[in-house]
Amino acid sequence: MSLHTEIIEQPDRIDSLLMSQKKNVENIAAEIRKRDIQYVFLAARGTSDNAGRYANYLLGALNGLPLALATPSLFTYYKQPPKLKNALVIGISQSGQSPDIVSVLEEGRKQNCLTLSITNDSRSPLTKASDFLLDIQAGKEKAVAATKTYTTELMSIAMLSTALSGDKKRWAELGGVSGWMRTVLKHDSAISQSAERYRYMDQTVVLGRGFNYSTAFEWALKLKELAYVKAEPYSSADFQHGPIAMLESGFPVLGVAPKGKVFNSMYEMLKRLRKELFAELVVISNDKKALALASLPLTIPTDVPEWLSPLICILPAQMFAYRLTQAKGYNTERPRSIRKVTETR
Amino acid sequence: MSLHTEIIEQPDRIDSLLMSQKKNVENIAAEIRKRDIQYVFLAARGTSDNAGRYANYLLGALNGLPLALATPSLFTYYKQPPKLKNALVIGISQSGQSPDIVSVLEEGRKQNCLTLSITNDSRSPLTKASDFLLDIQAGKEKAVAATKTYTTELMSIAMLSTALSGDKKRWAELGGVSGWMRTVLKHDSAISQSAERYRYMDQTVVLGRGFNYSTAFEWALKLKELAYVKAEPYSSADFQHGPIAMLESGFPVLGVAPKGKVFNSMYEMLKRLRKELFAELVVISNDKKALALASLPLTIPTDVPEWLSPLICILPAQMFAYRLTQAKGYNTERPRSIRKVTETR
Repeated sequence: MSLHTEIIEQPDRIDSLLMSQKKNVENIAAEIRKRDIQYVFLAARGTSDNAGRYANYLLGALNGLPLALATPSLFTYYKQPPKLKNALVIGISQSGQSPDIVSVLEEGRKQNCLTLSITNDSRSPLTKASDFLLDIQAGKEKAVAATKTYTTELMSIAMLSTALSGDKKRWAELGGVSGWMRTVLKHDSAISQSAERYRYMDQTVVLGRGFNYSTAFEWALKLKELAYVKAEPYSSADFQHGPIAMLESGFPVLGVAPKGKVFNSMYEMLKRLRKELFAELVVISNDKKALALASLPLTIPTDVPEWLSPLICILPAQMFAYRLTQAKGYNTERPRSIRKVTETR
Repeated sequence: MSLHTEIIEQPDRIDSLLMSQKKNVENIAAEIRKRDIQYVFLAARGTSDNAGRYANYLLGALNGLPLALATPSLFTYYKQPPKLKNALVIGISQSGQSPDIVSVLEEGRKQNCLTLSITNDSRSPLTKASDFLLDIQAGKEKAVAATKTYTTELMSIAMLSTALSGDKKRWAELGGVSGWMRTVLKHDSAISQSAERYRYMDQTVVLGRGFNYSTAFEWALKLKELAYVKAEPYSSADFQHGPIAMLESGFPVLGVAPKGKVFNSMYEMLKRLRKELFAELVVISNDKKALALASLPLTIPTDVPEWLSPLICILPAQMFAYRLTQAKGYNTERPRSIRKVTETR
C-alpha cells in the first residue's frame, strides 16, 4: 500500500531534505535578508494550506514576520489583486499545478516582489513563476492523500525560519526530527488496534492551538479524505466562541496538546470537555495529565521542542486516519470524488 | 423573543449606522490615507472573525489592501508579536472585551501603528486601546447568538472601504442595503415552514466563495450555536481539495451563490454536487438556475451588487437557523455551553 509506505518513509525523507537543501535554504534566506520584507503573502490549498498555517505561527513567533494567507479568487475571478509592496510571496503546492496558486506568484513577480515556491516538482508551473525554489524532496507521492509531502513542507518552512534567524541551536534541533518520528512510528500496530473503537464514528471535532493549529487542520483533512468522517478543526479559543454549543455527551473530540506555551490553555479546554461535557477524547501529547484524560492517548517523545512538535504530532494522526480507514473498509489509496492533482481557479 | 426581534430590526440598525457614522468613517479614512499603510492586520473571534473574512475580500478587491488575520496567541501565550511596520491594525468585537483581541491592538499601538476598533461598546477595553472607533450602533444585543452585530460590522467595513475609495456610486449603493434587507425579511414565515424538512439534519457543509466566503462561515456558526448542527464551512475551491470525498448521496449542502464574478464557479460546484453526487441542496441566490438546483431555494433580490451581497445573503441564513432551532425544540435565546461575552486569551 502506497499510503502506508509513504507514512513510514517520512523520517528518511526528512533526513534527505535536511541534508540536500540546507545550503539552498541559507542562500534563499540571504536573499530575503537583503530586501526590506515587511510581511509574507502565502498562497496554498488543502494540505499545503495547513503547512501555511504552521508558517503563520513559526515565521510570526520566531522571525517577527506577519503573514497574510492569500485569497486566490481575488487574483483569478475578481482580477483585482491587492498591492503587494514589500511582501515576500510564497506559494506551497506539492504538484505545483493549481492555476490559482500559480497566478498569485505570477502577480507577485509582476509587482516586483521576491517570490518563492515550496513544491515537490521542480519543473512545475509554480516553480517557473517564482524566483526561488525550495524543493521538498519527498519523492513521488502515489497515494491521493498527502502525508510525506505535508511533513516535508513543514520541514522546509522550519528550515527557512531557522536560516532566517541564523540560530545554530535550532539547526541542531532540526537534526532531531527524524529520530523523534521513528520513535512515534513504532506505535503503528498499537494504533491499528485502537482505531477499531472508532469504526462507527462519523463526526468529530479536532482541536489544536498555536503551532499545532496546523496539526488540527491536517488531522481533520485526513479523516475527511480517507475515512469520510466529518471532522471539523478549531483553535481551542475559537471553539469557545460558539461551536462548543453543539457538543453532546459522548461526542468524540481529538486534541493536539504537546508541552509548550499554549499547553495549559489546551489542557483546561480538554479537561472541561471531559469532566463537564463528558466528551470522549483522543489526545496526542507528551504530558501525562493530558494523556490521562483520553480514552485513546497517543504519545510523542517528551523532549520534542514546541516549535517542531507539528512535525511529530501529525504522525500518530496520520496513522490513526489510515487505520480507521481500514477499519471502516474504505480504499486507503484512492478516496472517492478526489484526485491527486486538483486544479482550481 | 430577542433573537427574532434582533433579526427583524437589522434594516433599521443599518439605516441608523449609515446616517450617524458616515462622517466619522470619512474622517477615519482621511487619517488612513495620510499614512503609508501597506496592509491591514485584523484581530477578531467568532462572528466578528467572519466579518473579518468579508474585510479580507472587500479591502483586497476594492482598495488594493492585503489583509492578514492576526493569530492572537502569538501576542498572549507566546508573547512574540510580529513586527507590524506600516500596518493598519483593526480589532473587531461586539463586546470589545476579549483580552486576546485587546492585546493585539495594544501591541499595534506600542509599535506606532494606526489602530481602529469596530465595536458595539464605545467604552470597552478594545476602544480604549485604539486610536479610532467605529461604533456599529447595533443597540444592545440580548440573544447569545450574534445577528445584528454581524450585519452592522459588515456595514461598518463596507462604509470604511467606500470612504477609502471615495467612490460616490458606492455610497449610493450602500443606501440600498436596508431596502433589500426588508424585502428578504418578508420570507420569514415561508422559511419557518420549510425548515421543518431539516428537523433531523445533524450535519451539513456550507459553501461560499469570494465575498460570500464570510457568509458560509457565519451561516455555519449560527447552525452550530443555535441548532447544534455540525456545519462545516468551505470555499468551493478548498472543498474540492479533499473534503468533497466525505459526501454521500442525500448529504445536505448549503450554498451561498448570488450573481457576481464567482457565481459560475459556485454554480458548477453545486451542479456537480446535485447531479453527480446526489447531494440535497439549500441555495441562497438571485439566479434562477442556481435556485432550481435546490430542494429549498432562498431568494434574494436580483439587483443586489456582489460586494454588498453578504449583508443580504446572511438574512435568510439567520432565519433558517432560527426556525430550524425552533423545529428542533432548542432554546433560541440561550444556547447551551456558551455565553454572550467570551473572554479568551
